Parts: sequence; structure tokens; C-alpha cells
Amino acid sequence: MKIVISGLGIIGGSFAKAVKKYTDNYVIGINRSSPPLEDALACGAIDEIGSAESLKDADMLILGTFPAAAVQFVKDNAYLIPEKCIVIDSCGIKSQICPELTKLSKQYGFKFVGCHPMAGKEKNGFDASEADLFCGASCIIVPCGAEQKSVAAVEAFVKKLGFGKVVYADPEMHDRMIAFTSQIPHVVACAYVMSPVCPSHKGFSAGSYRDVSRVAHINEKLWAELFLENKEPLCDEIDILIKNIERIRDAVKNSKQQELEEILAESRKVKELLGE
Amino acid sequence: MKIVISGLGIIGGSFAKAVKKYTDNYVIGINRSSPPLEDALACGAIDEIGSAESLKDADMLILGTFPAAAVQFVKDNAYLIPEKCIVIDSCGIKSQICPELTKLSKQYGFKFVGCHPMAGKEKNGFDASEADLFCGASCIIVPCGAEQKSVAAVEAFVKKLGFGKVVYADPEMHDRMIAFTSQIPHVVACAYVMSPVCPSHKGFSAGSYRDVSRVAHINEKLWAELFLENKEPLCDEIDILIKNIERIRDAVKNSKQQELEEILAESRKVKELLGE
Repeated sequence: MKIVISGLGIIGGSFAKAVKKYTDNYVIGINRSSPPLEDALACGAIDEIGSAESLKDADMLILGTFPAAAVQFVKDNAYLIPEKCIVIDSCGIKSQICPELTKLSKQYGFKFVGCHPMAGKEKNGFDASEADLFCGASCIIVPCGAEQKSVAAVEAFVKKLGFGKVVYADPEMHDRMIAFTSQIPHVVACAYVMSPVCPSHKGFSAGSYRDVSRVAHINEKLWAELFLENKEPLCDEIDILIKNIERIRDAVKNSKQQELEEILAESRKVKELLGE
Repeated sequence: MKIVISGLGIIGGSFAKAVKKYTDNYVIGINRSSPPLEDALACGAIDEIGSAESLKDADMLILGTFPAAAVQFVKDNAYLIPEKCIVIDSCGIKSQICPELTKLSKQYGFKFVGCHPMAGKEKNGFDASEADLFCGASCIIVPCGAEQKSVAAVEAFVKKLGFGKVVYADPEMHDRMIAFTSQIPHVVACAYVMSPVCPSHKGFSAGSYRDVSRVAHINEKLWAELFLENKEPLCDEIDILIKNIERIRDAVKNSKQQELEEILAESRKVKELLGE
């Protein structure tokens, strides 16, 4: 297959490296700026630096950019994408982008299958990409009405790249789950490190500070976009979280030891039932 | 030295194992129930199963129990503790217990130095203890007016056990920092997993879910006690956290992209300034 990857950041770069490590496919990279392309070519993550014209005989297009840029790229270049081509995105939100990409795919005849690799780091850019970033991770596939043959091809493809698990969701379910599993931890981390005592934490902290604060090393442009494009599910989850923090705070404030133990035991049981 | 350890849970057990691994001291274990004592004896973590009587010629007493139980144990047995003996605790809160233990030490003539090893796991009990639990961790020493010789002896002792860093604090500063670094992550983890979508997270989650939810596998009796004995600093930090979460939520809800980016950038800068 000839695979075009648009956007060689941590995710696009990791796709490129994984494809070259685990498959025999030919990879063409496209990126807004040159340095990641040159680095990718130098380390063998791509076979060729391309342009939109490279789409003409592509078998697959992987969108590695932010959501709005991914949609814009396809809009601008849809006329170049052949019918055989399967387009997959890697965006962290789906309700705002899948319908648009599905519409373009129907209009121009190519295939579109929504994808969200559940992997990442608190670093960004091509330098942070790794051939094994996806190893054992989950890949969420959002078929959006694509034909079964294309969906099965995407599943087989991502499994070859090392993903340990594939789950299916519609855009709404995806966004509700992601608000909880991924966006809330980023909201919490950012709110947490804004405490006035945070800058003095060293020597007084251990694993739990490190874990909760880790993703506060955030890419604010990407995450502002992701939050805003998932406004309702995210605000709902934030309100649920605040309500549950307040339950604990009120039990502490009012010295309700038994009630507090019961609330904490509820949480422990959730983790135990999940086998975590 | 003859060292008595009262309470062979994860912390007391790890002290026992570290003392036997890294020093030549003789260790006597005391515990409410027998199984941890037998396990500790069988694996060489202690040299002898003791009783309060063992305190009579102890050079050091390490309190490995919950805060209230630690104070009670010293109250009940202070008359047995010789003047040469240095008593250290391992409690996660200090303002509520250090003054009492300092008072007892002055009354009976032994030495007391407050200690808080910044290490732990989401598991409890002797089975979870490890000789290397403290390796590289920070140990907070709360001298509480003890003579410099005893404080220096405690610092030298914990460094031999593998602690990477020793910091000093008074009880109030300790409790304010711990509310932030340790208690807030536990509050957040417990509140987080109470979301109704949490039980369905598998396949939709990655590192950030895992990190934030980890300590929700909580020992509710211990943490309820720690929270209640640190009520004011903890409730203050919770209110700060909620306020900062609300800042993010309101920017999302009102589609204030630039404001949202600025808030997230503030957080990123805190982490960058800390070199994290």
C-alpha cells in the first residue's frame, strides 16, 4: 500500500514509524513545516516527502493533525483522493468531525473510517513519536457508516501496528467516554497545579502528585480545541466530578467519619469491580 | 541498635525489611494481629516477635500504625520507653499528633522526632511492603523541638534505608503541603471513579485515566482518619481546586477559546518552571 500521512506530530510520526517497523508499506509524509519531514526521512519513518498531489494514487490517508486542520485538509484536497483510498483520522473528538468527513467521502467516493488511537504522552511533536507508542494500546474505531470491508481493513491495519485492542463506538458514545477517560484528567491536572503551594511541592510529594499532575504539561492549543469541540459531554463530566469532590469535602468539613468512609469505600469498590 | 517496630503494614513492614537489608540492626516486631508477625519472622524482616516489654531496652521505636493508634500506643507504653530511645512516627499528618508525642517524650524523657516517608502504594498490609519502597523517596522530618543530635541520627538512619532526600518542616507546613501533594490526589481519584461512565471505560482509556484513578483503590479507614485530622488545610485545597476546575469549565461552556488557552498555558508553565 501507498500510505500518505498528513501531520507528523507525535501521533502521525508514530504511525509513520510503526508502519515502517511492522509492515512493508510505502509511506509519504506531508507536514506544514519542513523540519519534521526532514527528520522523518532521515530516520526512515517515511520513504518520501510528499504534497497534496501524492494523494492521487494513495491507498490510505492518515490524518495526524488537530481536528479542524484535519477536516480542512480533506476539504481542500478531496478532489485528489482516489475512490480506493481509505481515509482515517486520529482525532480525540468525533461528533464534530466525523459527519463532515463522512459527507466528503460520500461526495467524492473515497472511504472514511473514524479512528482514535488511545495513546499519547505529555510531550508533542515528531521528536516524541515512537514506533511502539501504540503497542498494547486500544484503538477506537468509529465506522460512521463506512462499508464493512473498509472497517475490517482498518482493524487489521491497526492491529499490525501493535494496537492490543480495537473497540467500536458511534461518535456520541466516543465523545462521552473520552470526556471522562481523557479530557477530565487533563482538566484536573491543569486545575491541580494552579494551587499556590504547587511550586513548593518538591520533597513533599511522591507518586500521587506525579500521576495527577503529569498531563498538566499540556499543549494548550490542541486541548483547548478538543475541549471546545466536546463542550457538552465535557461540562457534564466536570459537573459530576465537582459534585463528587464536594460530597467528600462536606463529609470532611462536617467531621462525618462514617459517611466519609462509606464514600471512599464506594470508590474502592468501583476499582475492585474493574479489577484495577 | 535494637529497633522496635509497632505495626507491620506496608510502611512498618518496609521499614523492617529495609533495616534488615541495609543495616546490621536488630529488629523486633509488634503488631495487633499475628499473621504479619509470623510472615515477617519467616522472611527475615524481623529478628523477633516482641511485645510492649521489648521497649525496655530499645534504641529506636518506629510507629508504623495509623495516627490515632500510634499516639495511643505511646501513651499506653511510655513508661516502658528508655531515655536513650528515639521514637519516630510515619504518619501522614502532623499537627494533630506531633504535639502529643512531643509532650509525652518530655514527660517520660525519651526522644521524639516526627517522620513522614513519602512513599506508598495503592495496596496495603505487610504483603505489600518492600525493602526498597523508600529508595530515592523523600523523607519529611518534623523535628518538633527535639535535640539536634537525635534529629541528625534520624536523618542518617533514613538515608541508610535508601531515602534519596530529607526535607524539614514544622507540623503546620507539613500538613499544608501534604493536603496538596497527597490528600488532594486521593480526593480526586475517589471522586473521579464515581462517574456513572467509569465502569465502561475499558477500551476508551489510556495512561491519563490510569494515573488519575490509581489511588482510588483506597484504604478508606486510613484515609478518612488522615482527611479528618487535616480538615482545614484539606478543605482549603479542595476549594482552590474546585475554583480552578470551574475556571476551565466556564471558559469551555462560554466558548472562550483564547481565555481557555491562557488558563491551560498557565498550568503548562507551572510544570515547565518545575522542570517536570
